[in-house]
Amino acid sequence: MFNSYGNIVRLTSYGESHGKGIGGVLDGFPSGIRIDMEFVQAELNRRRPGQSKLSTPRKEDDEVEFLSGIFNGKSTGSPIGFIVWNKNQHSSDYDELKNVYRPSHADYTYQVKFGTRDYRGGGRASARETIARVVGGALAKLALRQLGIRITAFTSQVGGIKLEEHYTAYDLDLVESNPVRCPDPVKAVEMGELIMQMKAKGDTIGGVITCVIKGCPIGLGQPAFGKLHAALAAGMLSINAAKAFEYGDGFSGLTKTGSEQNDVFYNNGGRIETLTNHSGGIQGGISNGQDIYFRVGFKPVATVLMEQHTVNVDGIDTTMKAHGRHDACVLPRAVPIVEAMAALTLLDYYLIDRTTQL
Amino acid sequence: MFNSYGNIVRLTSYGESHGKGIGGVLDGFPSGIRIDMEFVQAELNRRRPGQSKLSTPRKEDDEVEFLSGIFNGKSTGSPIGFIVWNKNQHSSDYDELKNVYRPSHADYTYQVKFGTRDYRGGGRASARETIARVVGGALAKLALRQLGIRITAFTSQVGGIKLEEHYTAYDLDLVESNPVRCPDPVKAVEMGELIMQMKAKGDTIGGVITCVIKGCPIGLGQPAFGKLHAALAAGMLSINAAKAFEYGDGFSGLTKTGSEQNDVFYNNGGRIETLTNHSGGIQGGISNGQDIYFRVGFKPVATVLMEQHTVNVDGIDTTMKAHGRHDACVLPRAVPIVEAMAALTLLDYYLIDRTTQL
Amino acid sequence: MFNSYGNIVRLTSYGESHGKGIGGVLDGFPSGIRIDMEFVQAELNRRRPGQSKLSTPRKEDDEVEFLSGIFNGKSTGSPIGFIVWNKNQHSSDYDELKNVYRPSHADYTYQVKFGTRDYRGGGRASARETIARVVGGALAKLALRQLGIRITAFTSQVGGIKLEEHYTAYDLDLVESNPVRCPDPVKAVEMGELIMQMKAKGDTIGGVITCVIKGCPIGLGQPAFGKLHAALAAGMLSINAAKAFEYGDGFSGLTKTGSEQNDVFYNNGGRIETLTNHSGGIQGGISNGQDIYFRVGFKPVATVLMEQHTVNVDGIDTTMKAHGRHDACVLPRAVPIVEAMAALTLLDYYLIDRTTQL
Amino acid sequence: MFNSYGNIVRLTSYGESHGKGIGGVLDGFPSGIRIDMEFVQAELNRRRPGQSKLSTPRKEDDEVEFLSGIFNGKSTGSPIGFIVWNKNQHSSDYDELKNVYRPSHADYTYQVKFGTRDYRGGGRASARETIARVVGGALAKLALRQLGIRITAFTSQVGGIKLEEHYTAYDLDLVESNPVRCPDPVKAVEMGELIMQMKAKGDTIGGVITCVIKGCPIGLGQPAFGKLHAALAAGMLSINAAKAFEYGDGFSGLTKTGSEQNDVFYNNGGRIETLTNHSGGIQGGISNGQDIYFRVGFKPVATVLMEQHTVNVDGIDTTMKAHGRHDACVLPRAVPIVEAMAALTLLDYYLIDRTTQL
Repeated sequence: MFNSYGNIVRLTSYGESHGKGIGGVLDGFPSGIRIDMEFVQAELNRRRPGQSKLSTPRKEDDEVEFLSGIFNGKSTGSPIGFIVWNKNQHSSDYDELKNVYRPSHADYTYQVKFGTRDYRGGGRASARETIARVVGGALAKLALRQLGIRITAFTSQVGGIKLEEHYTAYDLDLVESNPVRCPDPVKAVEMGELIMQMKAKGDTIGGVITCVIKGCPIGLGQPAFGKLHAALAAGMLSINAAKAFEYGDGFSGLTKTGSEQNDVFYNNGGRIETLTNHSGGIQGGISNGQDIYFRVGFKPVATVLMEQHTVNVDGIDTTMKAHGRHDACVLPRAVPIVEAMAALTLLDYYLIDRTTQL
Repeated sequence: MFNSYGNIVRLTSYGESHGKGIGGVLDGFPSGIRIDMEFVQAELNRRRPGQSKLSTPRKEDDEVEFLSGIFNGKSTGSPIGFIVWNKNQHSSDYDELKNVYRPSHADYTYQVKFGTRDYRGGGRASARETIARVVGGALAKLALRQLGIRITAFTSQVGGIKLEEHYTAYDLDLVESNPVRCPDPVKAVEMGELIMQMKAKGDTIGGVITCVIKGCPIGLGQPAFGKLHAALAAGMLSINAAKAFEYGDGFSGLTKTGSEQNDVFYNNGGRIETLTNHSGGIQGGISNGQDIYFRVGFKPVATVLMEQHTVNVDGIDTTMKAHGRHDACVLPRAVPIVEAMAALTLLDYYLIDRTTQL
Repeated sequence: MFNSYGNIVRLTSYGESHGKGIGGVLDGFPSGIRIDMEFVQAELNRRRPGQSKLSTPRKEDDEVEFLSGIFNGKSTGSPIGFIVWNKNQHSSDYDELKNVYRPSHADYTYQVKFGTRDYRGGGRASARETIARVVGGALAKLALRQLGIRITAFTSQVGGIKLEEHYTAYDLDLVESNPVRCPDPVKAVEMGELIMQMKAKGDTIGGVITCVIKGCPIGLGQPAFGKLHAALAAGMLSINAAKAFEYGDGFSGLTKTGSEQNDVFYNNGGRIETLTNHSGGIQGGISNGQDIYFRVGFKPVATVLMEQHTVNVDGIDTTMKAHGRHDACVLPRAVPIVEAMAALTLLDYYLIDRTTQL
Repeated sequence: MFNSYGNIVRLTSYGESHGKGIGGVLDGFPSGIRIDMEFVQAELNRRRPGQSKLSTPRKEDDEVEFLSGIFNGKSTGSPIGFIVWNKNQHSSDYDELKNVYRPSHADYTYQVKFGTRDYRGGGRASARETIARVVGGALAKLALRQLGIRITAFTSQVGGIKLEEHYTAYDLDLVESNPVRCPDPVKAVEMGELIMQMKAKGDTIGGVITCVIKGCPIGLGQPAFGKLHAALAAGMLSINAAKAFEYGDGFSGLTKTGSEQNDVFYNNGGRIETLTNHSGGIQGGISNGQDIYFRVGFKPVATVLMEQHTVNVDGIDTTMKAHGRHDACVLPRAVPIVEAMAALTLLDYYLIDRTTQL
């Protein structure tokens, strides 16, 4: 019930960081979509640890193996099963975690909820779980591409360093030109330096990812509980370490008045458009044809390589210090994950919208 | 599919602002809960227009009529049907809206999506739809009360005026002591004045509602896609005019380091607790027994009583000016709606958690 | 969770036989369908008690009041709320049932499950619950009519009296020409006489309803768990007193061999059809364009006006004798309910099928 | 959406007969259940082709590999991923099927629905898909065993040869004593001979499987659309080749009167029970503590090794003759599949029932 995402297009994921692998099943994916295997693998590579000096030195090859649902290079409409086998796992890194609850991790809540937990690398709570999302999202992007819908996310803030301008001021084609995945090359350098400082200290830092969706048709989303932005929010906040979501002007628009913030309609050469886009491309929960954009806040990674107070599994106060290979900042590698959740959501809502009129 | 909320406890809502009424069905509600009718009506009264000079002068009596599922004063486990009949609707206020698309409303997106729309008062997109949520939420609160779970929301920001302290610095019992529903009486006066200024100008203003949940047991929420905060985010962003959601430290925690922001565990007289609560009571998507708190940003109401540019239904540029009786600020009346969505979510996740272990 | 039926088009029902009324919400119904109110009421009249001497003398007017989702005579795509107010309920007929569990009714199982029950007329377990299905089904029929899909059910067996021929041997236009709703006028008389005999004795009798769907496009249904006939079975067996379901040749086909029972394909003037239709119009769970037909078995009504042994609510052995106005045979009035569940299922699966290919 | 089964406990399956394997994900399975690997494999062996001379000579080893959700021999509450790798597939057997539609198979309906099909062995429509059900069902049985719920299915009819007595007349411990899986050793021999005759001719034959559930607690199932028998029916009719379902007295009870068929309650040494069990252990959709029993009818396998008329993919009339290794009768191997679907349904409804009262 809870390891599935979506309504018509539904991704079910499974797997633990130190089990056999991370896999998923994408059900309800339309038939007849050409599956570009290199693209899917390239998306996984964007998520992969060890891709730059900014990320953890863990090397995870993360090759996807498709198990079903594809025949002669195209989707068949049957569920697409896939797995990424775990390799290079150092389970022994976690032996000492067997008996303590790491601060701000899921160790304690899992133990109470389930009466047991897989303490190796966080088990199911590991960020490796997002592998299934990236694979599913890559497939969704292939379908969206046929519909002219394009999704681009980027790092817009790391710690106190942030892009000052609206996304429209940047060339989003530059996002992949630096390891931070920031379209402002100067800020990217600053962000990268901050991450390296954190890494040196064994500390971590959070930030913001902005996501922009272009080419979305009018009409996606549902009134009441199925608002498109509510679905996007649920998708984004289901990503590990995500703490905040805003779309359009978000929190910053609250200090403006209605007359300042309304997006007036005008006829743009025969097409109804809005002069401004404070609404973030969604009005009344339904896409209005303008760019959809939103921001997702990620907390600093909880694993710091410093001594911290905590309790052990018997509830006795103690201290612990994490070892192993960890990210000092999750943002650069979370960019493709944000895109993946957006792609899954958009494709699902696109198909749902097809049922609105006979 | 999209006018329902929840998994086990599921609220389905229906009705338009200028139709016969706003109703709902609450299914999966546990049997044997004593239904305190006065409490339910009191919750509706907190949402009602015309309750103070701050809100629209529209008088809506909004009395709930229960249609099923209650016998001898208690819930029976059968679906609870209910309706609030519309009265005092001035549909003629909307005649002139038949042919124009109001800026930042759902008029245009509805028309494209459904090929038709009920132009009287926004139809289904009206804020009156939230009546069903408040009724359902009031019932959920009655069940949660038995479990010791208490939910309190309050206005923490209106335009640029905001509470500077963490929620723990305020006496939440004061929330209902002023029409703004702000626990700081001084700020409440300032906020009220700002709202009255907006009203005088025919303009509107947004703000932030903070919600605090106390007494939540450990273990609510699911890993991966069913994280408790993701469910809360979806619920909150399904409320009209909501644009942003953050829990725990949210966006403001992103500039801190992991070592600053981690919540270390300690043994508090035999109970495992956290020294700080940057996590907002949720770790790994699962409640940890600390207070859950989150903030929801609401944009200024789109209906301003000023002339605005727009297009008509033929796509021709024109201007329009809204008349009628509208709120200058939605925040005070949205407080019980935020609580209602939180209550529905918590009860649903409480019941789901019961299925975790045999 | 369990008072809703369907995926895209979803009917939620509520109400008890001796409460205020029986209502429902039809969500996901396509916009732009003209709502023929007289047709909906006529469908309700086909289900109504007291429509002929064969059925209970209870007079239930059962007029539907629509509460939302219809504007200017057409569906808007918003949820369609409706209610049929209870009138002429004789709750006092049931006072003596407060303390006993009626044999083969839901009294005892409800009491154990919910810890309480509404003993007036069976509460939620009453056959009046099917009112919501007939209203929802009538709306679905209006949409299916636009698609050329026609559903006809009829009584094919009462007790030991049954139609000997395949449905294709009868003129289904005759179904509504007699109160039994049987297309064979001679058998209809016999069935009617059997029902009257039962009524005279205070006893009851069961039977079979056959349902035929013509004009169904190819492709409705899903492999694996979403087979079209599995959905139809679930819909039919959710009707009170239904005990059995078979489609195509059903149980009677099991004694034939594969070579006898296979439906061979042939080119019928450019259209691929099957020479025979043992498959009942569904192959691999997916409609193949031939007539869909199935049979639903209904047990004799449990309420007999004779003394029966039972236990009281304290578990003590006792006897009881039902009074009041009851049907001796549910079949004639169940015909429109079978059609309604079929219509809801077909419309849902038609819309789902639209999401199969981009 | 449609390759998943269940609400709380949800099995998602994937895989084609001639792809890499058949797999599944069991989500919502309770934590802390000891996973008896030998039992799971033994259940798979009961389904396996080639286990006796009655079934196809295809040898499929069908070893299950678990991928996640189990740690230190127990379920963790995380999704349990698994796969059975395909081996010994003779895809070339199917090359000639590329261009024809096999009668009474899903070839044609798949092609129209999806615009494509995997013609090797039926692709997703293959009976190998049931492997995922047997694995999921075996896990469910392990949980049900802790609750004292036992499920036994058996072959009660093959062609015209059937058990004449009610299931209570047989010793169900004898079911596994013969390859037909029939508790009557004499009838089992007759059934086996009939199957061998069919095999010799290249023809096939259908039959009936009866399933009995003992030890089910009172209260499982939901009123209205979630009746326990409706869920069982949907589960059973989602199995390939299933055409009919009846529970309790089913079709045969329809010729009896209400006074004959009602199950009167009595106090059996302090426990409320029914004297008879025509109801099949379910009243008002809810289990009443008596044995649950139902019958599932399976048509003869569509693959006959005889020349049949059909059309090719261009719609041109032609003939075809299947080759390869096929079952002459699916019943013996379908017994564990029926049990598996029953087990998944029962566990799901058991957990749902836990949410009924606070």
